[in-house]
Amino acid sequence: MMKKIKKIAVMTSGGDAPGMNAAIRSVVRACAYYRVSCVGIYRGYEGLIEGDFIELTARSVNNIINKGGTILKSARSQEFRTKEGRAKAYEHLKENDIEGMVVIGGDGSFTGAVIFNEEYKFPVIGIPGTIDNDIFGTTHTLGYDTALNTAVEAIDKIRDTASSHNRLFFVEVMGRDAGFIALNAGVGAGAEEILIPEEDLGLDRMLESLKKSRRTGKSSSIVVVAEGDKSGKNVYELAKYVEENLPEYDVRVSVLGHMQRGGSPSCFDRVLASRLGVKSVELLLDGKTNLMVGLKNNEVISTSIAEAIKGGHSINQELLRVSDIMTT
Amino acid sequence: MMKKIKKIAVMTSGGDAPGMNAAIRSVVRACAYYRVSCVGIYRGYEGLIEGDFIELTARSVNNIINKGGTILKSARSQEFRTKEGRAKAYEHLKENDIEGMVVIGGDGSFTGAVIFNEEYKFPVIGIPGTIDNDIFGTTHTLGYDTALNTAVEAIDKIRDTASSHNRLFFVEVMGRDAGFIALNAGVGAGAEEILIPEEDLGLDRMLESLKKSRRTGKSSSIVVVAEGDKSGKNVYELAKYVEENLPEYDVRVSVLGHMQRGGSPSCFDRVLASRLGVKSVELLLDGKTNLMVGLKNNEVISTSIAEAIKGGHSINQELLRVSDIMTT
Amino acid sequence: MMKKIKKIAVMTSGGDAPGMNAAIRSVVRACAYYRVSCVGIYRGYEGLIEGDFIELTARSVNNIINKGGTILKSARSQEFRTKEGRAKAYEHLKENDIEGMVVIGGDGSFTGAVIFNEEYKFPVIGIPGTIDNDIFGTTHTLGYDTALNTAVEAIDKIRDTASSHNRLFFVEVMGRDAGFIALNAGVGAGAEEILIPEEDLGLDRMLESLKKSRRTGKSSSIVVVAEGDKSGKNVYELAKYVEENLPEYDVRVSVLGHMQRGGSPSCFDRVLASRLGVKSVELLLDGKTNLMVGLKNNEVISTSIAEAIKGGHSINQELLRVSDIMTT
Amino acid sequence: MMKKIKKIAVMTSGGDAPGMNAAIRSVVRACAYYRVSCVGIYRGYEGLIEGDFIELTARSVNNIINKGGTILKSARSQEFRTKEGRAKAYEHLKENDIEGMVVIGGDGSFTGAVIFNEEYKFPVIGIPGTIDNDIFGTTHTLGYDTALNTAVEAIDKIRDTASSHNRLFFVEVMGRDAGFIALNAGVGAGAEEILIPEEDLGLDRMLESLKKSRRTGKSSSIVVVAEGDKSGKNVYELAKYVEENLPEYDVRVSVLGHMQRGGSPSCFDRVLASRLGVKSVELLLDGKTNLMVGLKNNEVISTSIAEAIKGGHSINQELLRVSDIMTT
Repeated sequence: MMKKIKKIAVMTSGGDAPGMNAAIRSVVRACAYYRVSCVGIYRGYEGLIEGDFIELTARSVNNIINKGGTILKSARSQEFRTKEGRAKAYEHLKENDIEGMVVIGGDGSFTGAVIFNEEYKFPVIGIPGTIDNDIFGTTHTLGYDTALNTAVEAIDKIRDTASSHNRLFFVEVMGRDAGFIALNAGVGAGAEEILIPEEDLGLDRMLESLKKSRRTGKSSSIVVVAEGDKSGKNVYELAKYVEENLPEYDVRVSVLGHMQRGGSPSCFDRVLASRLGVKSVELLLDGKTNLMVGLKNNEVISTSIAEAIKGGHSINQELLRVSDIMTT
Repeated sequence: MMKKIKKIAVMTSGGDAPGMNAAIRSVVRACAYYRVSCVGIYRGYEGLIEGDFIELTARSVNNIINKGGTILKSARSQEFRTKEGRAKAYEHLKENDIEGMVVIGGDGSFTGAVIFNEEYKFPVIGIPGTIDNDIFGTTHTLGYDTALNTAVEAIDKIRDTASSHNRLFFVEVMGRDAGFIALNAGVGAGAEEILIPEEDLGLDRMLESLKKSRRTGKSSSIVVVAEGDKSGKNVYELAKYVEENLPEYDVRVSVLGHMQRGGSPSCFDRVLASRLGVKSVELLLDGKTNLMVGLKNNEVISTSIAEAIKGGHSINQELLRVSDIMTT
Repeated sequence: MMKKIKKIAVMTSGGDAPGMNAAIRSVVRACAYYRVSCVGIYRGYEGLIEGDFIELTARSVNNIINKGGTILKSARSQEFRTKEGRAKAYEHLKENDIEGMVVIGGDGSFTGAVIFNEEYKFPVIGIPGTIDNDIFGTTHTLGYDTALNTAVEAIDKIRDTASSHNRLFFVEVMGRDAGFIALNAGVGAGAEEILIPEEDLGLDRMLESLKKSRRTGKSSSIVVVAEGDKSGKNVYELAKYVEENLPEYDVRVSVLGHMQRGGSPSCFDRVLASRLGVKSVELLLDGKTNLMVGLKNNEVISTSIAEAIKGGHSINQELLRVSDIMTT
Repeated sequence: MMKKIKKIAVMTSGGDAPGMNAAIRSVVRACAYYRVSCVGIYRGYEGLIEGDFIELTARSVNNIINKGGTILKSARSQEFRTKEGRAKAYEHLKENDIEGMVVIGGDGSFTGAVIFNEEYKFPVIGIPGTIDNDIFGTTHTLGYDTALNTAVEAIDKIRDTASSHNRLFFVEVMGRDAGFIALNAGVGAGAEEILIPEEDLGLDRMLESLKKSRRTGKSSSIVVVAEGDKSGKNVYELAKYVEENLPEYDVRVSVLGHMQRGGSPSCFDRVLASRLGVKSVELLLDGKTNLMVGLKNNEVISTSIAEAIKGGHSINQELLRVSDIMTT
């Protein structure tokens, strides 16, 4: 019979995302419920290597469900990529009698977890936390829904001034490799064009479309651009290109930037975090490892982390089509 | 071969919900894309019976995607329940060469649509628009996500004052027959107790739980109550009951009320509305009828309206359990 | 020469208000700047009597400027109204070498401060913190601006659903003795009628006005009512009265309630809190007492607390007139 | 005896600001109240020269009080700087029997108004509408309060991610010639440094301060920079400079940009707009001209436009000091 785990650690790793605190709270509360000790690791693998730990009880996570950021802080760790770094990490876990670990983060953080598990057979469960939604094995990552609302609210404000002045705005949203934020925030904000990494729309087609838009009487326009757009031009170059080719347009640029990572999480992200946190603890208690928890058809599921890392999360073609129809 | 439809009507019916305008916009834009005329019907079946119509073009729906309420207004119609009422309605549709209709609303509105279709073979597609999320055949109804955010933001504010004064608040949220808002907003707001129509927690268990909560050092608490809670007491009676039985608590009541129906829709609701609007037009153009469009596993699907009406949308047992664990 | 004060205490008392945390932070930071120790007193006079103190350093108030509520909690104290209670309070201050006190609160809290000062010659400075804005000697109390925004945003949402359904809403806002919130939020939300304690509009005039409003084609209306309205009817009775006398109206009631006390403070309240906090510490260091700091013509001023308590803060007649003109 | 004015025009000019719609609404409603016709001029002086007018009734301004931007659109006009342009403008006013004009805008727009009045003796009243608050003769310009809230909410979000990653953020806010937004939003957001055009802090002092901040254990910092900061470096150069000189800092830049111009106005801006709109109409009806309405000590006042243009609106020294104390 399997020995029950007695102490679990939780960390946040990689780029922070709204809902990470709600997930920490859920892991801690689930531990309390199952009478398991819980330890927080500061600054992801960095703090793991340094043994920067803190004991967490149900009370330590009071009133954090609605806070952006992460009380455990986050970091990217070079040292954890080395064998020596991981050895130190393992030592600290052993020293502290920690028998399982929940890693809240993205692809990079999960890769580290898999290697660590291979080397030390240390039980690890991943919770997908990133605003980019670019992780296979879940329809939604933590923070994605909140980031969409933040982006859409900002673009709504920009639209106010765009239409008052008959201007064309290029608005850059986050998403280096994935266009989820751009596509969804673009459709949600009623953008006239959306440029994403997954699709090279072609600059000519954009010019055509903007020309047509003006002809049909539209006096202001919003073009939403993902950071990692395929045009080979950044958002300022894009704006300049349009200005040169469509002098009738008064063009402006707005880069939404890091505010998209912060803010109080949406109800969706808080509930998702609560569900995933409980599931991750239950999986560890069931003797499972190397799994990522996620959402599918509104049900909590788990996927092998290895699969989650390999699998791509491709753009929804139907939504692309909807976006074309909406912007016609 | 089927004759292509040339004119489609759209209405909003029943209680209004954020995202209805985004859905109207999507229906209108999809009509424009497929070169079909589009007519708006004011005040649901009421306006249909009176022939209160307006032609809608892509430009008429500019800048409404982010507006709460419905530009077509909504109403409940007694007259449409009568054969005479429906006859008048049909006359107006025929007179105006309307060949298909998109009804954005809830259960009641769909029931009307089914009867009307039976009597006149008039093609009808339903879009589930209600904050209550109590419709079978879709994981999310339009407006539900926004209402959750509204409720959670309000409860966050109430928590500020509750914890400043060590008070116990009973917060009533909408949901006459369904506890979706209460359960999700309760988990999202970190409520200490959640009372929903689907489950009779029992007043004694609540008292026990509140007592325990106080013993463990919690000085303030939030109990989220659905309108239609099964305890047989309304929220004021509940508060009084607790005050009498737990005199150590300083109890307050807050009824969130109709503000939950309004407000700018969340990105989720805007995107959902855009997707469902396009799909509903495409179904009509494909010669389909009596279907409700919806979301399942993040894909747009369609269900027979009859089935949607009959089928219940039951509370997620796993989430109930998460809620128990979170409030322990 | 006056001996410089070495230790200052700060408390929040009475009803909580957004901006109280920002004021605490400012007092603490100003103490750090002037190299004076700072002690926080929990739960107002209640905690003072019990000696429930905490040392506060610049770091203890990191990241609270944007939090609603008060980290020091607040309460109303019966015991402080007794000589014995105040004696205990004084003992605790002496024991802890506290030589001056900043009280953040409303009228009631200031009255206590004045009596205490008379009895013990203990230096006290007041910061007006209440959402009601009913304090003489300042154009704005802490929390008032935030409460207005909260009320107006809620009424905006209610207007969405009111106009979708052609309904008449009675919205009750806070303000037991003062109509500041009702008048300003009413004008800000574009209400059709505003009922405040300072003015008995008369129910007949309201009926007349609502009738006229309907005649001129307005299909939905918002009536904003202060808690302490003079009509002698509460908001539910008002609604019933109108329903009986104007059956053409579909009437609903919404009581905004305690959410008006919470939420992240507006920029205005945060800046005001920062300014008043610094001033209150500087006054104590200057050997002043029995003063309330406040804002006048956008400058920080001070008034005798006694005067602040006696003086009324009357409704702006010009704004009343503007409100009449706007709702015509 | 003076002949009563029968028709008034209203325009918005220059950069748009939240509250402009509320001011338009107020002008229109005040005209209705005093039974004067009201005409809206599109796109400021540009539309005046082209005669691009629209009749406005109380109903045309329903439901705009809470909308950002301006329904009359705004523009900067080169042609109005020419005698010919102004002649055309005057012709259109005469043709349409317009006898007075309310100009909602900033310094530039008022200069145009004064010249026009000199040439044609045409009655003009100005309403200060700009987010920059850089106009003499009013403590608050329309839109300023809303822009502060927008900036502070965005910086709150950035702080979440800054503290999760121990980063230093340079956040640029609007204000080319005036540091009002930077100073107030900086204090409101609890920024560690604030750089404004009115004061050359000196880069060395900033470095010193950041070094000290790190020494005292602060792990993340926000520096708020006004567009027009005096350091001679733009925000990106500033960031690079700090990165080179303080390599221990992980530096990021965020330019808030045009979203600061949009969004639903705060209650303060809506009420201010309502008051100023009424006053401007009443001044025209009283035969006044060349005045700007404004707020002083929470009272509505009027100033000669000429004076308003000449007078500077200097930074509050006391607030500067508060900002120093808060960031120590």
